[in-house]
Amino acid sequence: MSTRKLLVDVHTHVYLPRYAAYLRARAVAPRIFSRPVPGEPDVEEDRLLILENEPSGGRPVGPQVYWDKSQKLAFMNRHGIDVSVVSSANPWLDFLPASEANSLAKELNEDLEEFCSSSPDLGSPTSGGGPSIKRLYGLGLLPLVSEASLSDVLKVITQISSLPHLKGVIMGTQGLGRGLDDEELEPVWGEIERNGLVVFLHPHYGVPSSVYGGRANGHVLPLALGFPFETTIAITRLILAGVLDKFPSLKIMLAHSGGALPALSSRLASCIDHDPVVASRLKHNARYYLGRLYFDAVAYGPEELGFVSSAIGRSSTYDDPSASASAIPSLESEGKLRVLGSSRMLFGTDHPFFPPLKATDKWKSVTENLAAINAVAGWGDEEIEAVCGGNALRIFDLV
Amino acid sequence: MSTRKLLVDVHTHVYLPRYAAYLRARAVAPRIFSRPVPGEPDVEEDRLLILENEPSGGRPVGPQVYWDKSQKLAFMNRHGIDVSVVSSANPWLDFLPASEANSLAKELNEDLEEFCSSSPDLGSPTSGGGPSIKRLYGLGLLPLVSEASLSDVLKVITQISSLPHLKGVIMGTQGLGRGLDDEELEPVWGEIERNGLVVFLHPHYGVPSSVYGGRANGHVLPLALGFPFETTIAITRLILAGVLDKFPSLKIMLAHSGGALPALSSRLASCIDHDPVVASRLKHNARYYLGRLYFDAVAYGPEELGFVSSAIGRSSTYDDPSASASAIPSLESEGKLRVLGSSRMLFGTDHPFFPPLKATDKWKSVTENLAAINAVAGWGDEEIEAVCGGNALRIFDLV
Repeated sequence: MSTRKLLVDVHTHVYLPRYAAYLRARAVAPRIFSRPVPGEPDVEEDRLLILENEPSGGRPVGPQVYWDKSQKLAFMNRHGIDVSVVSSANPWLDFLPASEANSLAKELNEDLEEFCSSSPDLGSPTSGGGPSIKRLYGLGLLPLVSEASLSDVLKVITQISSLPHLKGVIMGTQGLGRGLDDEELEPVWGEIERNGLVVFLHPHYGVPSSVYGGRANGHVLPLALGFPFETTIAITRLILAGVLDKFPSLKIMLAHSGGALPALSSRLASCIDHDPVVASRLKHNARYYLGRLYFDAVAYGPEELGFVSSAIGRSSTYDDPSASASAIPSLESEGKLRVLGSSRMLFGTDHPFFPPLKATDKWKSVTENLAAINAVAGWGDEEIEAVCGGNALRIFDLV
Repeated sequence: MSTRKLLVDVHTHVYLPRYAAYLRARAVAPRIFSRPVPGEPDVEEDRLLILENEPSGGRPVGPQVYWDKSQKLAFMNRHGIDVSVVSSANPWLDFLPASEANSLAKELNEDLEEFCSSSPDLGSPTSGGGPSIKRLYGLGLLPLVSEASLSDVLKVITQISSLPHLKGVIMGTQGLGRGLDDEELEPVWGEIERNGLVVFLHPHYGVPSSVYGGRANGHVLPLALGFPFETTIAITRLILAGVLDKFPSLKIMLAHSGGALPALSSRLASCIDHDPVVASRLKHNARYYLGRLYFDAVAYGPEELGFVSSAIGRSSTYDDPSASASAIPSLESEGKLRVLGSSRMLFGTDHPFFPPLKATDKWKSVTENLAAINAVAGWGDEEIEAVCGGNALRIFDLV
C-alpha cells in the first residue's frame, strides 16, 4: 500500500485571530499597529513589528495571509500544496508572563485544532484507500517562558497529544530563559518523546544586532544569517548537552534546513575532538547526530539541499566519537549518501513570510524551494516524492 | 610549462617573537602568562589568553609551535608541506592604540619578511626549471584599528607590496571599528587591489557569548560556530556594501571555507530579492559573488568541500540579480560545477591551533583536511593538485 503523491508543506505559519488580537492590544513589540501608508496619508495599513527597532517599521500584515483560513487554503491551492502542517509564527508566547503564556497556549492549541479539524477532507493518502486526511494539521504551543511551571508545560504536552489534528509543537530557542540545553527541560523532552510529537525548532532572536554594523540593509542580515545562526547554536547546544543521546526517539525538525549545522558539522566534530572539556562527553561523533534529526527543505537552492542530504546520509559512518572524515571518492557514492539523507528532509514554504515585492500569481519563495527539490543531483523521482510529501506523512503520522 | 605537485598551506599562523613579547608584557587579554601546571605545582607553563574569561584559562602556548621558525619548518616537513603562507594569528593589532598599531605593524611586517626570506629554498616550482621559491611566504598586517590614520594604512600597504616575500594581508573583521563595510575603507580596498595583494579574511571575535548559555562547553561553541559566523557576517556585509562590485579585481580569501556563506548563499539571495531596501542595490545575485572569492579548504569533511566547490562553480549562472535557482538535475552536471569551483579553493591547516590532545606524529587537523580534499566526489587528480598547491602558486603569485 503506497502513499499518493502529495505536496505537504511542513513550514507554514499562522497568527491565529486570538493571537493577532493580543498583538494589536500591545504598545511594545511584538505588536500589530496601524499607520498611514507612506505617500498616501488617507490610507491606513497594518504593520507587524516583531522586534523593537526593526527597519522599515516592521512589515505589512493583513488577514489575507496571516490569520484567515480560507486564504491559507487559497494559497495552498494556487501552489498545488495538498496538506499544510501549520504552526504559530514567532515570537509565540515568549513575551508573556508565565500564567498568561500557560492559559493562552491552551486556548491557541484549541483554536489551532479547530482551524485544522474544520479544514476540507483530502481523501485517503494511500493509493489502496483508507480513512481520509485533512488539508490542515497543526503544531501546538508550549508555555515555555521564564518562570514557567514545569507541570503546566507537561500538562500542555498532554493536551496537544489529545488533540487529533496537532502533530507536534513549534519551539523557539529560549526554553525557560536559559536555552534548550537547560537540564530542567529533560522531563519536557521525555514527555514529548513518549507522546511521539515532532518538535519544530524555529528561530526568532537571531544573534545580537551589534554584529551587523550601522549600514542600512533592511531585514537581510538578521533573516538571512541571524535566523539560521540561532537555530545552529540551539541544536548544537542540545547535542553538546547530550539530549539526543538521552532521548534517542525524540523527533526534532530544524527550520531552514538546519541553518549552518550541516556546513559546520565536521568543524564541530573537529573542535569537540580537540577540546578536553567536551571530548569524552558524547556517545557519537558530532556528524552522527545529523542522522537523528529532520530538516525542512527551505534552503532555496539544489546544491544546498543536496549537501544537507549528503551530511545526513553520511551520519551512520560517524558512530564512533573520534571518527575521522570518511573517504567518499566518487559521485556515485555521494549519490548514495544523498538517497539516504533524503528520507529526513521535508518540503516547506515559510509562508506567509517572504511575500513577493510585486503582485504575482505564485510566490517565488515557494517555486524556488520546489524547483530546488526537483533539481538536486542524485535525487530521483522516489526521493523527490518523499521530500515533497511522503516523509511528512510518515514523520507526522498522517497515514 | 606546468607546475610541480606541491603542498602549499595557506592558513598557518605565527606569533612572531616581537609580538609574543608584547603579549607577555600585558596584564589583560590578549596576553601570555605563566602558571603552574594543574596537579604539578613545581612546573610552570605558558598560557595564551586571547579573550578575557576564556574557559580553561586560555590554551597552552610555547615557542615550539608559536614563534620558532625551525619548528614551523619541522611541522611542515612532518606533514609533507612544501610551502607555507604564514600569517600572524588573531587578535593581530586590534587591541592597540592607533600609533602603536602603526609602528608595530611596520616592524612585524619587516620581521615576517625576514622570517620568510631566510627560509630554505625549495627549488623551482615549475617542471621546466626557473627561479627557486622559498619554503615560507607571508601575509602582512595593516594597522586597521579605531582612530587609525588612513594615510598610515595606505603607507603600510605600500610597505607590504615592497617586501618580496609578503603576498597579501591577513585582516580581521573590525576595520576602523565600524566593520569592513565602512565607506571610509574604500581607498584601502582600492590600494590592495591595485597592488595585487590577497586579503585573508579571518575571524577573531565570533558573536557575543551571551548566545552560548551557561553550560561548560570549553572552546567548542565560539570556535566551531562563532568563528565561521563572524566571517560569514563580515563577507556578507562587504557584498551588501557593493565592495565586490566596486573592486572587481580585489582578491579575498575566506578562512574556514567561507564559514556558513556557501550554505546560506541561496537564502541570502532570496532575502535580498524580497527586501526593498537592498533588492535594487547590487549588480548581481548574491550567489554570483562566491565566484569572485577564494576559500581555504579548512572544513574537515569531503562533503563540505564538495559543496563549497559546487557553490563557487554555480556562481556564473547567477549573474542576474533576481536569478532563480538553476536546474542541475544530474550528478554529472554537479560534478562539472565542482571542477569549476576547485580553482578557488586552497589547502590549509590552521596550525598551530587544534593541537592534538595526545602526543602523535601527525596532527589530525592536518591529516583530516588533506584526506577530505582527496575524497571530494567529483574532484580528480587535477583538481586535487590544484587545491593542494597549484591554486596557491597562482593566486599568491609565487610562480
